[in-house]
Amino acid sequence: MYDYQINRERLLRHLQELGNMGRRNDGELSRLVASDVDKLGRDLVVKWMKELGLDIKIDRIGNVFGVWSTEENQNKKPVFIGSHIDSVINAGIYDGCYGVLSGIEVIQTLKENEYKAKRPIVVSFYTNEEGVRYQPDMMGSLVYAGGLDVETALKSVGTDGSILREELKKIGYYGENEPGFIQPHSYIELHVEQGPILDQMKIPVGAVENLQGISWQKITVEGVANHAGTTPMYLRKDAGYVAAAVNVFLHDMCIEVPNSVATVGTISYEPNAVNVIPSKAIFTVDLRNPDSKVFKELENRLDEFLNKISMEVGSLIHKERLVRFEPVTFNQGIVEIIEKSAKNRDIVTKRMTSGAGHDAQMMSRICPTAMIFVPSLNGISHNPKEFTEESDLENGANILLDVVVDLSSK
Amino acid sequence: MYDYQINRERLLRHLQELGNMGRRNDGELSRLVASDVDKLGRDLVVKWMKELGLDIKIDRIGNVFGVWSTEENQNKKPVFIGSHIDSVINAGIYDGCYGVLSGIEVIQTLKENEYKAKRPIVVSFYTNEEGVRYQPDMMGSLVYAGGLDVETALKSVGTDGSILREELKKIGYYGENEPGFIQPHSYIELHVEQGPILDQMKIPVGAVENLQGISWQKITVEGVANHAGTTPMYLRKDAGYVAAAVNVFLHDMCIEVPNSVATVGTISYEPNAVNVIPSKAIFTVDLRNPDSKVFKELENRLDEFLNKISMEVGSLIHKERLVRFEPVTFNQGIVEIIEKSAKNRDIVTKRMTSGAGHDAQMMSRICPTAMIFVPSLNGISHNPKEFTEESDLENGANILLDVVVDLSSK
Repeated sequence: MYDYQINRERLLRHLQELGNMGRRNDGELSRLVASDVDKLGRDLVVKWMKELGLDIKIDRIGNVFGVWSTEENQNKKPVFIGSHIDSVINAGIYDGCYGVLSGIEVIQTLKENEYKAKRPIVVSFYTNEEGVRYQPDMMGSLVYAGGLDVETALKSVGTDGSILREELKKIGYYGENEPGFIQPHSYIELHVEQGPILDQMKIPVGAVENLQGISWQKITVEGVANHAGTTPMYLRKDAGYVAAAVNVFLHDMCIEVPNSVATVGTISYEPNAVNVIPSKAIFTVDLRNPDSKVFKELENRLDEFLNKISMEVGSLIHKERLVRFEPVTFNQGIVEIIEKSAKNRDIVTKRMTSGAGHDAQMMSRICPTAMIFVPSLNGISHNPKEFTEESDLENGANILLDVVVDLSSK
Repeated sequence: MYDYQINRERLLRHLQELGNMGRRNDGELSRLVASDVDKLGRDLVVKWMKELGLDIKIDRIGNVFGVWSTEENQNKKPVFIGSHIDSVINAGIYDGCYGVLSGIEVIQTLKENEYKAKRPIVVSFYTNEEGVRYQPDMMGSLVYAGGLDVETALKSVGTDGSILREELKKIGYYGENEPGFIQPHSYIELHVEQGPILDQMKIPVGAVENLQGISWQKITVEGVANHAGTTPMYLRKDAGYVAAAVNVFLHDMCIEVPNSVATVGTISYEPNAVNVIPSKAIFTVDLRNPDSKVFKELENRLDEFLNKISMEVGSLIHKERLVRFEPVTFNQGIVEIIEKSAKNRDIVTKRMTSGAGHDAQMMSRICPTAMIFVPSLNGISHNPKEFTEESDLENGANILLDVVVDLSSK
């Protein structure tokens, strides 16, 4: 059952070729969704899908599906392999593309080996995973899974003032199928980790068993501006101190509670003068944990601390919810298949949590889902320096191959 | 000895008149040093000095002295009354002006009462106390006391690109006397508190016995930017967290150590994105304490904490000194004269520390010095809402009168 091997050279060639598609003369790769250069990338991947004999389907949000089915299996629910090929600004070549191209490589390998799947196999890529040009991110898969109305999504206004529907039409990827038109049997996504854990631990493959819940809040503290020299500590309502105390509280809480992370990534003070006590501090909190119950507890503890500190200092606090995604637990059966495959191939593996959001997060709403991670050198991603070793890329694709074989053989 | 009374109505009228000098049509008062509107203010005060028969002297940094001397006392060192009449942007009418105009009022009262001083009495105002247009603040008195070379000061470049020397010449206040040309016997400054203590405690007069040391530092923390979701807490070098921890440390330390205040008034992060760990945090620390030894200890504790936290987090810290003034202890003899006068007049008084810097801070380098404070409503200053009750203004000026009589009678 684990005798197949993907073609490493072909996968790497495809990665380089797609990685150069739309690259500017100055070397920058910015394949923002539904742009002219996104069209170049899409056309290349669709060309490869067609060369493999896959049946190309496009839905109204621009998600693309290359379907490999036979007369015998065409009535069964297909195994989905998926990810995305849109990029951030000044991107690397692995994020997203690696998963899609490995899917193509897996099908090509299986076809070359005359593998008879009991289910159709679909390699897919989803519109606007990155969310750079239109909000929200992971849009295509969210719409596909029924989490966002397609008409609402198509009306999205881009950072450049464009409307997504018009842009998809312009590049020829406003398809005719309704999102969700194929019900998947299962969904598997292979991705670079975009974090430092596998690289630090020198573990070549991660079996991703869950995905963190994400809470983003914008918090505004209103204190009172006053003279930094003449106002005693006990008479201050220092909005900047409140922001600092929240940051330290979050840090200590996330050190205490395993698998939690919190980040105050943005801050501003008013009036922002050396000798004036800040009357206002505006900052954001990014809080994540993979367990729904613990996630909720962390959010509650933050709320309690905000109440406590604002009472102590005599400041007002206003909270604005920016983003909230519940944690996702992936399908344990598929995670075990990943581990079994790695064991058979003598590849060390580790169960892990995805810290970032992925299309798999959305697809898990409608079918059994899991992810395979390979290391990102120094955890770097969303950056031209993004890099994964060739042997790791090969290992990941081979494990994807095994998982697809396992899922499509029943 | 305490029979004289200043003329309340005249003092209030002068305050209003100077407070409207240079006021814009939209109501804003911004009499920045050496500007055309500063000239209007200076000319008015000099006119009043001349009407009193005072001998006007101007030094090369634009400090102005109205000298009242007689044949009998002209060889003795004079008692100085002083403050400033330049203002911040969008100022109130009391800060500085109250001290200068009370000085004029005191001399007028003494003249009307045919008081025979054993020493000359000088009412003076000093250039650029506020430091809004040129750095450093308290420049005129600092130069007068020998703490800054006059040529260096005159070369100062303003926020508007102007050169102080040229601007002083333009308004006719580049005098011929070398700063320091009159050696004072003593210096007394009456000022609004610019802080909340007297107003909160309902005490009408403060006998200011010392002035806080002031330390300003700009601190840059260099961490490492990384993904907020995929970077575990133990692998972070979060520059923003370090800044927050320093803020909380300063707060706790100044709660613990009496008479200390610390303020983080400005902050910025890089890259300042919700889901990116800050790679850089730049913030300022304003630290004050009136006792030289304790002040130094607080600075050392801050240094130690900066070292400790940067070791823990693995960040780099760069400190830049912006301002440092040692604490000043005023002359206890003059402080006691203030208290004695208040007692004789049945006015409750309180020994206190000045949290802000004043010209008295500089003049104390060259002669016995002290300050008298009157309440600022709600501690508000540097603001059009700056306000002191008329009775408090009268009390303060009467105590100034008594102190001048005491000092000039020996």
